[in-house]
Amino acid sequence: MFAPAYLDHNATTPLDPRVLEAMLPYLGSRFGNASSRHEYGRHARQALDTARQQVAAALGAHATEVVFTSGGSEANNLFIKGAAAFLRPGLVALGATEHPSVREPARQMRRAGWRLEEMPVHDSGLVRTEGYTRLLQEKPTLISLMLANNETGVVQDVAARAAEAKAAGGRGWFHTDAVQALGKMALDFRALNAAGVHALTVSAHKIYGPLGAGALVLDKRVELAPLVAGGGQERNLRSGTENVPAIVGFGLAAELAVARLSDAVAGMLRQRREIEAGLANLGARIFGAAAERLPNTVFFGFEGIEGETLVGHMDRAGFALASGSACSSANPEPSHVLLAMGVAAEVARSAVRVSVSRDTKGEDVQRFVEALGAEVRRLRSLSAMAA
Amino acid sequence: MFAPAYLDHNATTPLDPRVLEAMLPYLGSRFGNASSRHEYGRHARQALDTARQQVAAALGAHATEVVFTSGGSEANNLFIKGAAAFLRPGLVALGATEHPSVREPARQMRRAGWRLEEMPVHDSGLVRTEGYTRLLQEKPTLISLMLANNETGVVQDVAARAAEAKAAGGRGWFHTDAVQALGKMALDFRALNAAGVHALTVSAHKIYGPLGAGALVLDKRVELAPLVAGGGQERNLRSGTENVPAIVGFGLAAELAVARLSDAVAGMLRQRREIEAGLANLGARIFGAAAERLPNTVFFGFEGIEGETLVGHMDRAGFALASGSACSSANPEPSHVLLAMGVAAEVARSAVRVSVSRDTKGEDVQRFVEALGAEVRRLRSLSAMAA
Repeated sequence: MFAPAYLDHNATTPLDPRVLEAMLPYLGSRFGNASSRHEYGRHARQALDTARQQVAAALGAHATEVVFTSGGSEANNLFIKGAAAFLRPGLVALGATEHPSVREPARQMRRAGWRLEEMPVHDSGLVRTEGYTRLLQEKPTLISLMLANNETGVVQDVAARAAEAKAAGGRGWFHTDAVQALGKMALDFRALNAAGVHALTVSAHKIYGPLGAGALVLDKRVELAPLVAGGGQERNLRSGTENVPAIVGFGLAAELAVARLSDAVAGMLRQRREIEAGLANLGARIFGAAAERLPNTVFFGFEGIEGETLVGHMDRAGFALASGSACSSANPEPSHVLLAMGVAAEVARSAVRVSVSRDTKGEDVQRFVEALGAEVRRLRSLSAMAA
Repeated sequence: MFAPAYLDHNATTPLDPRVLEAMLPYLGSRFGNASSRHEYGRHARQALDTARQQVAAALGAHATEVVFTSGGSEANNLFIKGAAAFLRPGLVALGATEHPSVREPARQMRRAGWRLEEMPVHDSGLVRTEGYTRLLQEKPTLISLMLANNETGVVQDVAARAAEAKAAGGRGWFHTDAVQALGKMALDFRALNAAGVHALTVSAHKIYGPLGAGALVLDKRVELAPLVAGGGQERNLRSGTENVPAIVGFGLAAELAVARLSDAVAGMLRQRREIEAGLANLGARIFGAAAERLPNTVFFGFEGIEGETLVGHMDRAGFALASGSACSSANPEPSHVLLAMGVAAEVARSAVRVSVSRDTKGEDVQRFVEALGAEVRRLRSLSAMAA
């Protein structure tokens, strides 16, 4: 079977075969409900405990700070709505380039009397100091600023922004969506927490783990109402029978994601640079190029070429890429991330994302650069003929 | 390896090997994000579409009425809180024996000004007509009444109760938790919907499917706010990357659960009767015995023997059972289901649940009845000596 080169790891990653191996017993004879008080249940409970230790260790957190959820979107919603439920409605301040799973719950809260403000960003995608300082004076009750952007890969200095919030006398809770950061840069919840970050979201299926598992890492001073209330699982913060196979997979995937991180980062960065060199030759614009970015992500566009069109042609040529944000690509609007960065709507429509991983083959990157060049030249010659 | 006889299928079921087989490609090379516009994404999308058809067909629903969630608890929370978000706070009426994932979200709503009333039940576990009629006169905005109880197996005539609500001129939405009903009795959402049921919850891991998938089947007239907001998946009712392997497994599990349902029901019922005959010889009390019950569930107790103790001894003897409700067994309180049925707290503490399945072996049932008899006689002689 012909398998296209997969260059869309920010959308989802394959399951690491070692992770699947670790999950299989729990998809087989070890199928118990972790709340059950018999042999099957105890095995499930032990597996959850081990996975919680693994995720905590990978993030520099304590196991008791890890709240398992069904994924990153749920963890973001849990923080935003769960914390709001215990607070008097006030100001929620979000980065202008947050993921929809942070923006949309914050918008829902407006019905309950919350005010929503976005921190403006530079062309680079980084938060503007002056705008942020002004927002902090309004004493936001909740702040959410993503560590690394899913589309551009732009990395915010979240520790510095949290420290500024603290220094400004803010008493709000500070959350960061680290879904795209894990496995692509060092993460240390203890250090972030010391700087003033109270909660952090991660997800398994972005780090070669399974779909169906994520976590909110949470400073225990934060009171949260559960999104999913019921049987009282996850210290009453997330009810529902624990998804043991997925959580077991998440544990090992987290361990593997940080085990040889510097090698993985160096490899991805080398590939990103090769892609960027190719893009420069073709005259592409790279979004967020002026900021520090994830080693695996390039978000780019060619003038006059629709991102959707280019992604479609590259798909037929055997390369899996994303246009705009894969997570919301049911939505044909230009990327809100790029619009927030001051990119004109028609330029934003040209955007294409390539995201490699620790396992991407060098030859796939080479073939990609060549195929992209051929495709772009073909599309340009077609449009020149049409003109 | 010694495998204890598993008689706790209402807590969770093993994964059917055919279901695992169907999931494996999606845990392997077919790992794409269903929102991605490339070959990997299209395969994932097609798999979701197929699974949605399978779940709909198993339930007598349209595919467009199926909203996938991470499980039954989430689906219950989604209905209760999601519907409430679009309604003026009013009365929410619940069965007195509902699952915690219905009761707890309803309790959370009290902070938003909702009033919560429970429909009283008879000793049998069935809703009392007079109490229900009185409640209907108060025009509840939301009603939730479970089809089959997870602890007792008692089956409510939900269609009749919904029809009464409709006849009383109620304009509220009527929901039923059918998590324990699926695969153990015939279910027809179209017929229930015609009677006045607007939403129904099901879960994969109770029907030999995987953990991490459930569904809310929803009459499209019901407006719901998402619990997990974000990328807009599931017609904007449940955001987050779809758990394709789990949903694929759910689809097949649902198909298998109804494929030879009458054979499965007959087999389970035979085993339940054998267990009940054994229990009668031992002088057990069977809770909900006067009502129609699921063919696979017996909830019983022996005077003077703690359920926890008996479950522990039976575990060591090689039989996996539940005491009270496994889903909330972190909680040592006596079952709220039994208390609602008028059972005294000390009697409720004796409760033990055995739940067989379509695959339970006859010899395991025989061995169970014998081992239970030996254990009960031993515990009785110990307590006679102590007295």
